[in-house]
Amino acid sequence: MGNLDQLKAVTFDVFGTVVDWRSSIAREINLLADEKEVSIDGAEFASAWRSLYQPSMSKVRSGEIPFQPLDALHRNNLDTVLEQYDIGQLSESEKGHLNRVWHRLDPWPDVIEGLVRLKERYIIGTLSNGNISLIVNMAKHSGLPWDVVLGAEVAGHYKPCPEAYLGSAKKLDLAPHQCMLVAAHNTDLQAASSCGFRTAFVARPTEYGPDQTTDLCADHEFDVVVSDFVDLAEQLQA
Amino acid sequence: MGNLDQLKAVTFDVFGTVVDWRSSIAREINLLADEKEVSIDGAEFASAWRSLYQPSMSKVRSGEIPFQPLDALHRNNLDTVLEQYDIGQLSESEKGHLNRVWHRLDPWPDVIEGLVRLKERYIIGTLSNGNISLIVNMAKHSGLPWDVVLGAEVAGHYKPCPEAYLGSAKKLDLAPHQCMLVAAHNTDLQAASSCGFRTAFVARPTEYGPDQTTDLCADHEFDVVVSDFVDLAEQLQA
Repeated sequence: MGNLDQLKAVTFDVFGTVVDWRSSIAREINLLADEKEVSIDGAEFASAWRSLYQPSMSKVRSGEIPFQPLDALHRNNLDTVLEQYDIGQLSESEKGHLNRVWHRLDPWPDVIEGLVRLKERYIIGTLSNGNISLIVNMAKHSGLPWDVVLGAEVAGHYKPCPEAYLGSAKKLDLAPHQCMLVAAHNTDLQAASSCGFRTAFVARPTEYGPDQTTDLCADHEFDVVVSDFVDLAEQLQA
Repeated sequence: MGNLDQLKAVTFDVFGTVVDWRSSIAREINLLADEKEVSIDGAEFASAWRSLYQPSMSKVRSGEIPFQPLDALHRNNLDTVLEQYDIGQLSESEKGHLNRVWHRLDPWPDVIEGLVRLKERYIIGTLSNGNISLIVNMAKHSGLPWDVVLGAEVAGHYKPCPEAYLGSAKKLDLAPHQCMLVAAHNTDLQAASSCGFRTAFVARPTEYGPDQTTDLCADHEFDVVVSDFVDLAEQLQA
């Protein structure tokens, strides 16, 4: 473990790291499919929707389209997925509600206990590509005790652009080395590390389902490697 | 009381409404004066510093100077006040620490109980001219349980510009009428009301000291008028 004496803020990637998006979305899709009397594999639908996430942000990162909140990208991507999976007739209001399933994702079981402990000693915040309303509604949904919402919408740039990390640290008036990113994804942590952030890898080996092959372990030397958020609190002496 | 059925977010002015800036700053100045062996009235110093607050924001609102976080305005204003009150030799680091006294202000005694209750039913957030780091550090200082930090730095405009209120509602993806501003200041509430916000006046009759003559009561028809934050929770059925 590197020198973490000056650590003030522990910031978190959210999708996959804090919340189990795949199971949460699968459950809602399965319920909707039952209601509409169609046969759809909810988990497959979730993965198909998520697979459009990086390509849609790439267009923003490259400047092809202007910055827009993730809800808007999710909504466009939902239309694409709905062309692949016939879930019956959905009204605009039903589609809007379905799109906000990303506001209703459940945390992994260790999350609340770990965050409550970390909050005692550090500023805890989100450093996610999710927009502010999404993160706030998700926090209300399951009691995530964030001190502050940072990340893409606050910085005006999507991760892994350096501006997303550096802009978030700046809003806290902290130097990058006073901030840590916690994530289940090696590329996110490498980008944060390049900006001077401290880093913590947490394994979420079923984020993409039972056959996950990526991000099963830390590929690089991060400051800490933890099994879950309670372990993180332990290692950060919170 | 107006129709508040659709109320989702209760947002708060901070200086004077949530925290007692005058007593908190007076206490630190008095301690500093003792340490430096000079004689200064801490409460007077606090009032002098605060009196430069609106003029410094006016320069931003008029476009004379670009938007900058309140910490920067406070720091410039501190230099001006220090010319009026000889507090002895202060190092840059001491001035920086003193400037961050705004991050260490104490809440009025009813605040925590009221906010904890309101948080159960509503999104609770700050809609202050204070910058993000100031609001986050202040929350950590005394356990203010905000769900989200909104206001000037997030919206890029100082209150009472309409953009400060409308930009904050937009970040929550809410319509103005789904948001309420709680403040101890009539002008702030009138500006919020003009933007379509619901409004709650709370009296803080000693914010400016024992001889306060302004904002002793609501000058306009606001949606609710409360005696403190516990009364607010009561009236909003939280």
